[in-house]
Amino acid sequence: MTPVSPPYADTGLLGPEWALSEAASETGDHAYLRALLDAEAALTRAQAALGLAPAGAAAAVTRVADPARFGIRSLAARTPAGGNPVIPLVADLTAAVGEEYGPYVHRGATSQDIMDTATMLVAVRALGPVLDDLGRTERALAGLAAAHRDTAMPGRTLTQHAVPTTFGLKAAGWRSLVLDARDRVARVRDTLPVQLGGAAGTLAAFQEFGAADPARPTRAYARELGLAAPALPWHTLRTPVADLAGCLAFTAGALGKFAVDVLTLSRTETGEVSEGSGGGSSAMPHKANPVRSTLLVAAARRAPQLAATLYGCLVAEDERPAGAWHAEWEPLRDLLRLVGGAASHAAGLAEGLRVHPAAMRRNLGLTRGLIVSERLSAALTPLLGRARAKELLTELARRAHEEERPLRDLLGEQPELKDVDLDDLGDPARYTGFAGALTDRALERP
Amino acid sequence: MTPVSPPYADTGLLGPEWALSEAASETGDHAYLRALLDAEAALTRAQAALGLAPAGAAAAVTRVADPARFGIRSLAARTPAGGNPVIPLVADLTAAVGEEYGPYVHRGATSQDIMDTATMLVAVRALGPVLDDLGRTERALAGLAAAHRDTAMPGRTLTQHAVPTTFGLKAAGWRSLVLDARDRVARVRDTLPVQLGGAAGTLAAFQEFGAADPARPTRAYARELGLAAPALPWHTLRTPVADLAGCLAFTAGALGKFAVDVLTLSRTETGEVSEGSGGGSSAMPHKANPVRSTLLVAAARRAPQLAATLYGCLVAEDERPAGAWHAEWEPLRDLLRLVGGAASHAAGLAEGLRVHPAAMRRNLGLTRGLIVSERLSAALTPLLGRARAKELLTELARRAHEEERPLRDLLGEQPELKDVDLDDLGDPARYTGFAGALTDRALERP
Amino acid sequence: MTPVSPPYADTGLLGPEWALSEAASETGDHAYLRALLDAEAALTRAQAALGLAPAGAAAAVTRVADPARFGIRSLAARTPAGGNPVIPLVADLTAAVGEEYGPYVHRGATSQDIMDTATMLVAVRALGPVLDDLGRTERALAGLAAAHRDTAMPGRTLTQHAVPTTFGLKAAGWRSLVLDARDRVARVRDTLPVQLGGAAGTLAAFQEFGAADPARPTRAYARELGLAAPALPWHTLRTPVADLAGCLAFTAGALGKFAVDVLTLSRTETGEVSEGSGGGSSAMPHKANPVRSTLLVAAARRAPQLAATLYGCLVAEDERPAGAWHAEWEPLRDLLRLVGGAASHAAGLAEGLRVHPAAMRRNLGLTRGLIVSERLSAALTPLLGRARAKELLTELARRAHEEERPLRDLLGEQPELKDVDLDDLGDPARYTGFAGALTDRALERP
Amino acid sequence: MTPVSPPYADTGLLGPEWALSEAASETGDHAYLRALLDAEAALTRAQAALGLAPAGAAAAVTRVADPARFGIRSLAARTPAGGNPVIPLVADLTAAVGEEYGPYVHRGATSQDIMDTATMLVAVRALGPVLDDLGRTERALAGLAAAHRDTAMPGRTLTQHAVPTTFGLKAAGWRSLVLDARDRVARVRDTLPVQLGGAAGTLAAFQEFGAADPARPTRAYARELGLAAPALPWHTLRTPVADLAGCLAFTAGALGKFAVDVLTLSRTETGEVSEGSGGGSSAMPHKANPVRSTLLVAAARRAPQLAATLYGCLVAEDERPAGAWHAEWEPLRDLLRLVGGAASHAAGLAEGLRVHPAAMRRNLGLTRGLIVSERLSAALTPLLGRARAKELLTELARRAHEEERPLRDLLGEQPELKDVDLDDLGDPARYTGFAGALTDRALERP
Repeated sequence: MTPVSPPYADTGLLGPEWALSEAASETGDHAYLRALLDAEAALTRAQAALGLAPAGAAAAVTRVADPARFGIRSLAARTPAGGNPVIPLVADLTAAVGEEYGPYVHRGATSQDIMDTATMLVAVRALGPVLDDLGRTERALAGLAAAHRDTAMPGRTLTQHAVPTTFGLKAAGWRSLVLDARDRVARVRDTLPVQLGGAAGTLAAFQEFGAADPARPTRAYARELGLAAPALPWHTLRTPVADLAGCLAFTAGALGKFAVDVLTLSRTETGEVSEGSGGGSSAMPHKANPVRSTLLVAAARRAPQLAATLYGCLVAEDERPAGAWHAEWEPLRDLLRLVGGAASHAAGLAEGLRVHPAAMRRNLGLTRGLIVSERLSAALTPLLGRARAKELLTELARRAHEEERPLRDLLGEQPELKDVDLDDLGDPARYTGFAGALTDRALERP
Repeated sequence: MTPVSPPYADTGLLGPEWALSEAASETGDHAYLRALLDAEAALTRAQAALGLAPAGAAAAVTRVADPARFGIRSLAARTPAGGNPVIPLVADLTAAVGEEYGPYVHRGATSQDIMDTATMLVAVRALGPVLDDLGRTERALAGLAAAHRDTAMPGRTLTQHAVPTTFGLKAAGWRSLVLDARDRVARVRDTLPVQLGGAAGTLAAFQEFGAADPARPTRAYARELGLAAPALPWHTLRTPVADLAGCLAFTAGALGKFAVDVLTLSRTETGEVSEGSGGGSSAMPHKANPVRSTLLVAAARRAPQLAATLYGCLVAEDERPAGAWHAEWEPLRDLLRLVGGAASHAAGLAEGLRVHPAAMRRNLGLTRGLIVSERLSAALTPLLGRARAKELLTELARRAHEEERPLRDLLGEQPELKDVDLDDLGDPARYTGFAGALTDRALERP
Repeated sequence: MTPVSPPYADTGLLGPEWALSEAASETGDHAYLRALLDAEAALTRAQAALGLAPAGAAAAVTRVADPARFGIRSLAARTPAGGNPVIPLVADLTAAVGEEYGPYVHRGATSQDIMDTATMLVAVRALGPVLDDLGRTERALAGLAAAHRDTAMPGRTLTQHAVPTTFGLKAAGWRSLVLDARDRVARVRDTLPVQLGGAAGTLAAFQEFGAADPARPTRAYARELGLAAPALPWHTLRTPVADLAGCLAFTAGALGKFAVDVLTLSRTETGEVSEGSGGGSSAMPHKANPVRSTLLVAAARRAPQLAATLYGCLVAEDERPAGAWHAEWEPLRDLLRLVGGAASHAAGLAEGLRVHPAAMRRNLGLTRGLIVSERLSAALTPLLGRARAKELLTELARRAHEEERPLRDLLGEQPELKDVDLDDLGDPARYTGFAGALTDRALERP
Repeated sequence: MTPVSPPYADTGLLGPEWALSEAASETGDHAYLRALLDAEAALTRAQAALGLAPAGAAAAVTRVADPARFGIRSLAARTPAGGNPVIPLVADLTAAVGEEYGPYVHRGATSQDIMDTATMLVAVRALGPVLDDLGRTERALAGLAAAHRDTAMPGRTLTQHAVPTTFGLKAAGWRSLVLDARDRVARVRDTLPVQLGGAAGTLAAFQEFGAADPARPTRAYARELGLAAPALPWHTLRTPVADLAGCLAFTAGALGKFAVDVLTLSRTETGEVSEGSGGGSSAMPHKANPVRSTLLVAAARRAPQLAATLYGCLVAEDERPAGAWHAEWEPLRDLLRLVGGAASHAAGLAEGLRVHPAAMRRNLGLTRGLIVSERLSAALTPLLGRARAKELLTELARRAHEEERPLRDLLGEQPELKDVDLDDLGDPARYTGFAGALTDRALERP
């Protein structure tokens, strides 16, 4: 019996970050095969549209360019010989198209034209769901920010309580990173170009076929595929790949920030948020693991180095480099699918996040009032003078810690402060500064 | 006697990529100290401008904020205690300002406000020379592209001659990458923001001082420094740093592509270009090493991983992370100074590059005419039929190689080709396709 | 009809570096499934061996732990819920084992025990072929080094001819790196441990089952699988993974050095070596691309960043980290399979490499004798004095270049050198220094 | 007045990870200058020892090779011309030695011989303090592990309480990583070799000088410097640099694991440990920041990517590469000094760490007893049957959470459990499994 997947396939068993996601199916070998065939068919159609090839050829290639007719395993097995999958694919496609129109398959192109164009198609197709999921994420975060505009919680720096903040401001910050990611991804997606240069980027074969200038075939090709038409062949001018690397690494990191905060706030001792549906543990039935955040952080740990490989591939010698091009394929696919999976998990995380204001309130009290010492210092200085205010607060902070008593109570015992409204001054929830106003303003960003 | 530099200083002895460059002085400890002081002085001035601090304080802090008054070594020695240089600097600055206005130093700010703002100032200042040098580079490359629009040379793929191209197209390609770099750097530079958030990003202290809203102090601060005013404090929303990482890694790679091609074409066997003034060798007087290209490639090998570290720092927990912030400082400085040095070397390389068309012409003949086999195949197919054309070319290619004779001569012996203009068909210099037109078009980009 | 591979699978279409290699099948999802089941079965057997579980349970689990009984796609689809593939696998395996012995499946273990143990099994199994292929490579290189012990060729530094060397020394150098890689891989392979710690690394459940100490179950488990027994559970003490990262990144780089030299020497202008069977080009029949070297360089460009991700995962908080563990799986698999494919390509490359001494000889003459200027300088100094020798050589070097005449002829015209054996002194092939002796010595290394 | 440091110097202002550390002074420009001079002087002495140079030359060069006689800034300023600091240094050193013995300076060597040898010297010198500090760290951790062998605390997985563990086991785990780092660093340090190959690695000049074989000069050179004698020149066989990269990245990560746990346990809500002397905050007098841990984590975020750059430099073409060599210098220095600083901070952290068993005890109760559900499940299954035990525990876990009551009390209300010793079974401190035994065993490792 035919096995469902070949013994050497990856299907996501090791990739919970992306398994099951739309990005997985948009970036699998099947999606690449489809894109390679789309690129070949569009090439023949573009030539027909310019009168450089017969219409029948365009129709024939388009009809035959169906992934179901080609065997991915056989193609994969033949990639090492020539170093890329286009060589065996062109052989199979030419044979399938038949004698009459076979010569119009891949005509004037080099393997890299098809491979790069297919890669851009895959990227555009994979970024659609990414943008959708970033949209879902930011909308859910906007909802959280609005709902918790005034929910006070400890602000934390270098792991320690600093001064109060609000959960609204926190969620608004997460959202602003998601919007930054969305803007960067959308900008890059809209510039991704076809590749068309022929053997060494001069489009020389097209001149032989009778093309009047280099721009026309490129534009016709771009039109067929809905990609941009580049000014120059970019076989070794890898701006599109580097731009993808940058926006994807950014997105992974932006979602990683959201996730690491959720993880931090979810800790058993803190408990200020929890994932909507945590992963269970086989051994410990009570555990609800923050699985989505975990997977987001895992993706964010991997993306920067994948991007580094791609940035490194800018250094591509000659008209086609020996290695720098080949080294791009898997890292770019990995980035697309990691970020695709991450965006999907982020949307689920944001939409399902449960917020626990009571825990926030409880935690605000953990320092026995010292979390508002900045405010007390500012308020007492005009009353007592800078030196005395500092001396008093330092002394009472020490005592609050040693005697395990609230700072507010110790302050209340000071005769010199009898006219001060210590209930207001000492309440962490009343020292959230401009958190509300900042949240409002951030939410205005569309 | 006072040593000129402390025993543990780096002054570029290991960094020929950046030693001596303007970027080195714009990113050294001295430049950071200056920027830190500029950030502190601007903070007090901004408060004075809004009526939140006396004008005298602004004047006093501005007057005292002079790098010459502060000891870098002493500051550096005190950074490990608190983990950043702002803490000791604020202590020294406050003392220097004196009792009356000392309280207005660093008022309402947190260390990160000053450090981040100073970092953005350093970046803006370091990117100026980068943009200038990218401008010099692209102009020199435009000159080369125009001058060599029709200078034929071998196009090479996977290290082997493929079909001819032109040096003009090659230079135009280098230039297009440089322009891409320029656009990305300029775009990022224009968005770099001040940082102002206070202890946990709520600007709470400013509310205590009487500020009406969070936007006004931020805008006033930005105005003082010529930086952008962010919508939110970005203590842990590190878009500006990630954007810098991306545009700098891109620039290093773009210049690395130029350099790796120069290195490849400079090889003793190839000799198609040479650096204007190569580095000498102590042992071998005849050697003229392509030193600038070497240093550009070295920079391009390092930049992606530095950028990866910065992208990784997007995952910054809480309101100030324990490590992810600190890990940014040196890698960002390294990137700025590597790219600054690289841009300067690239300008020198482009302006001084010597092109050797005779060597290109000679190399075009190395395959005994096989470099135009693509064209011959296209031209002979209509005459002989596809099968016969292929058979004939394969046979003659074999013989050209074995008998060490030019393909053109072997073709001339074929009776079936007696009416073909083999001098035209077989001349590599006449098979440069649309290289000229592509070059023209690329040079139209401003 | 059932598709041969699911639409989202990777089967090597984008990975010519590893497609078809043994490493591919040793690291695919199927291989991981097998290893996971091996780990589960061994766990039950180890408990039975210590009398902590009935013998029947060991037999039952071992019988059922057959990859053919489990669906990879279904398991992959269930990984995101709990964040790892062990959770659904344990559910399926327990059900398959049945009511009586089901409770002995995964008993006392945590998911990470099984996942880590399986990963070590996969690594050991994948490293076998790697070591075999490194062996093939070093033997072929030893043969080349011996055969070309005295084949002179240009030594090149910073792309320029420096002084002569030999191909034998070059091949011996490649071999020494391969041996370094072999030693490092073998050393790491022999230390890879099982993982056994239970929920938080205390083996607490084993105490409940009646184990007398923590070492015995661990040793029994290790014995079943042929892995090492660690002193401590290493859930967050990731030495084994980091060690793998280091030896694999080293191997990729070592093979990359071999490959980049082959690429450089294969260039059309240089032609000193060629791959046994180059990849063809669809458009240019004469081209023989150095495909194996290209793929080796591509692998070497990717491996360091994959290793960086794994080194970064050493920073794993708590008793099981939220992300740092999950981020290891795919990069480690990628490294294993990239290096596996690379080792296989390297063996093929070394065994098939064709060396062209005539081209080396020809290239030695390209500098018109300047390649031996170091020797001339050393030889003439005693005769003419340092100053005069330097002046003369500088002048003649200039003339050799300008007049396009051999330095030897110009030297022959100098009366002051009439008694010097210029044929010896000026012959690059006689200035290979200790290359032969170094080669001999290097080949003694077993 | 002479400025104390040149405007472009780095003195640690941005590097609190390493500022002030011994590693800083062992890796600064001054340390490199000293090592370069040591390498030059040893080279002449080695030749004198073999009778290849006059004894007077050895004495003269050794006498003059004093860092105080050479200007680092001037040398740095001249590096870009030739691409490395050795070229200007040799010029200055030769001039300083004078006419008679000047010719014996740098004789037979190439710049890379000196630069690589100096780099190995710097590495050996910098690793000494690293090993000392790792020793201090492991001893302090051993003390903590022994002292807290039985101090129970929550074991945490994916941020959630799992089952209990002990602080002793945790400290023993940190120590085992430190020992792994120590072993790897020491092993690499003991293999670091001199470099001696001459212009293209054939030691040709030494043959001219009369050396009988290549091994003797190399061994003599190694003897002078206390480094290893390599079998082959390693100009492009970069095993020593890659080995350094690996052991340093490992060490940074190993210390990062210790630090991230300290950070996690230090959080205000958790409070189970605190740094001996936390960094103060300017705005919040009560804050005691875990600064050392923060700096350790920052170092661990940077080291992997620096190592990746070095692993990538293994791919070094020819006999000296154009870029891959130059790209090593700064990243290797950065790694040495980051790890040096980190080891120093780790020792301080371990020696000063304060442990708070009361907080651990308090936190063990946070899940109201659910932290021992694994044990309860194991214990009740024999009594109640698997199905009933699971049902009961699930129900009571739900109630414990909802009613905010301890699980132990709910269990006590179950008649079917009246004979069970719930005080024992429900006590987290009594469910630490083999933590004590594991700790004992781990501490046996010397």
